[in-house]
Amino acid sequence: MQKTMSHRPIIIGVMGGADVSDRDCRAAYELGGLIAANGWVLLNGGRNCGIMEASAKGALEQGGITVGILPDSDPNNISEFIQIPIITAMGSARNSINVLSSNVVVACCGGAGTISEIALALKHGKPVILMNFSVAPLFEDYRQKGVLTSARTPAEVIVIIKRSIMNP
Amino acid sequence: MQKTMSHRPIIIGVMGGADVSDRDCRAAYELGGLIAANGWVLLNGGRNCGIMEASAKGALEQGGITVGILPDSDPNNISEFIQIPIITAMGSARNSINVLSSNVVVACCGGAGTISEIALALKHGKPVILMNFSVAPLFEDYRQKGVLTSARTPAEVIVIIKRSIMNP
Amino acid sequence: MQKTMSHRPIIIGVMGGADVSDRDCRAAYELGGLIAANGWVLLNGGRNCGIMEASAKGALEQGGITVGILPDSDPNNISEFIQIPIITAMGSARNSINVLSSNVVVACCGGAGTISEIALALKHGKPVILMNFSVAPLFEDYRQKGVLTSARTPAEVIVIIKRSIMNP
Amino acid sequence: MQKTMSHRPIIIGVMGGADVSDRDCRAAYELGGLIAANGWVLLNGGRNCGIMEASAKGALEQGGITVGILPDSDPNNISEFIQIPIITAMGSARNSINVLSSNVVVACCGGAGTISEIALALKHGKPVILMNFSVAPLFEDYRQKGVLTSARTPAEVIVIIKRSIMNP
Repeated sequence: MQKTMSHRPIIIGVMGGADVSDRDCRAAYELGGLIAANGWVLLNGGRNCGIMEASAKGALEQGGITVGILPDSDPNNISEFIQIPIITAMGSARNSINVLSSNVVVACCGGAGTISEIALALKHGKPVILMNFSVAPLFEDYRQKGVLTSARTPAEVIVIIKRSIMNP
Repeated sequence: MQKTMSHRPIIIGVMGGADVSDRDCRAAYELGGLIAANGWVLLNGGRNCGIMEASAKGALEQGGITVGILPDSDPNNISEFIQIPIITAMGSARNSINVLSSNVVVACCGGAGTISEIALALKHGKPVILMNFSVAPLFEDYRQKGVLTSARTPAEVIVIIKRSIMNP
Repeated sequence: MQKTMSHRPIIIGVMGGADVSDRDCRAAYELGGLIAANGWVLLNGGRNCGIMEASAKGALEQGGITVGILPDSDPNNISEFIQIPIITAMGSARNSINVLSSNVVVACCGGAGTISEIALALKHGKPVILMNFSVAPLFEDYRQKGVLTSARTPAEVIVIIKRSIMNP
Repeated sequence: MQKTMSHRPIIIGVMGGADVSDRDCRAAYELGGLIAANGWVLLNGGRNCGIMEASAKGALEQGGITVGILPDSDPNNISEFIQIPIITAMGSARNSINVLSSNVVVACCGGAGTISEIALALKHGKPVILMNFSVAPLFEDYRQKGVLTSARTPAEVIVIIKRSIMNP
């Protein structure tokens, strides 16, 4: 587990789809705000749509730092709520960077891309919290070890993040 | 769908775990042999263990070409049955290359890494055949579109590959 | 050229070797401080040695934000002066991310790795400033177009960065 | 240095620009033919232009195996003389894969991209042969160690490759 310097904030990765419901976006927006309010950096895929846009907006409005790991180099695809865009120009290969750079990964509703990130995060030993999203019965061994957990609300996610950080 | 030149062989990606049962390895070995016998190139993760080693061995013994997309640069980790090792030295980010370079992806038994490859393949429009491996109920929309299919034996996989190639 | 939102700071990439002279480290430290003092984000390769460590230390001590694009996933290799470590685990392939994510690239003294970053930055249209480092007569066409420039001191680098930002 | 199995052919990477002179293309074509005639695999950037197209054509016409490491996923950009296209979809980050996967790197005439590949190859300990291309006075330390050499003709390149393979 990565040593956290006093000046090095915890990074929370928020993964999720580009095309999701308003309800999921509202939850991601609220989650982003709570992440920032706790002094953590929000990291996501950086695009201007879906869970990425919503969570970045929530975090930035609460004064948080927002980092986006972009799949392409087109500046028009970057969410305006991302402060620090990291331009990979390597498509889905950047999913691996997303999870390796996060202390904890929260997976909101999403499609195949989001599932690939859950899988990569678990493979690399990162705690994963599913918010209103189920991948059961996959990854049951990770669930039994407590690395994969579920939450229904942003507030519940925050409780689990705090527990993960305390007992890494 | 990628245009296939007369001199450009079909590439079949075979994904699967590093630590799997003998039964799964025997099936992967048989599958590799059938892929080579059909004149297709076998592509996998290139390591000297599990499904990778077994499928490469099967293909090479039948005179096929075997390509391995390696996650690291240690030559000791390359399967001796891989003819053409591609050294990415980029860990799991290479999973994206595995699926993008395959005309059809076959997923044998595996863990989180294999599931990430199934997810990435579907996201990028590649046909995926699960051999004795279930990820249900995930990806049901891809199953209904016929992009995700299941097979119990290597012979069944070959039938589905032929159908995929004919009707890309 | 990337549009810069009011809340999106300019990112200055500082490239350079892991094993350089004390004099080059002192200049990189001073440069990092000036970058932070101007309100810009410092981005570098993130390791705890050479130009990376020195420039991050300079920026962090002036209250700047420091982003490191790490080649591996070993937390012991991260400079303690990097606030936001981005873990790529893809070795030198991350050099491409370094330059694509920077609005302006400053190349301090370095070896083959640094030269690869200068080359990639120029290829992708990024302004490159060489600080006490010569790659002449290579890249003369870029120099004639004004994309590649030289400076002897951190203060001179800052003047050129300001000009680049004004006239992108 | 990578152990070469009896069934594992030597891989020669041929790097060079997309927009080069007819003379350079003819030399690359001849070089590709000689690489194939020696039983070596030709690996390059895979695109349908410049040194990539010419060297692949030369090798394929001599019955060789040609591998292309493509920067994007557009099938229209693949040279028709590439037998095994590896689709990275990661732009210039694939330059690192090009050199890591080659036993010996030959750099023909090119621009910033080619220079980045020479730099990365040297950094990772690969022998580099410049064919009618100069990067002097850069990399003089590598030249003195004999890792970086120069040749005027394809035939001279082949002599140096054979020496490199004999004394890795």
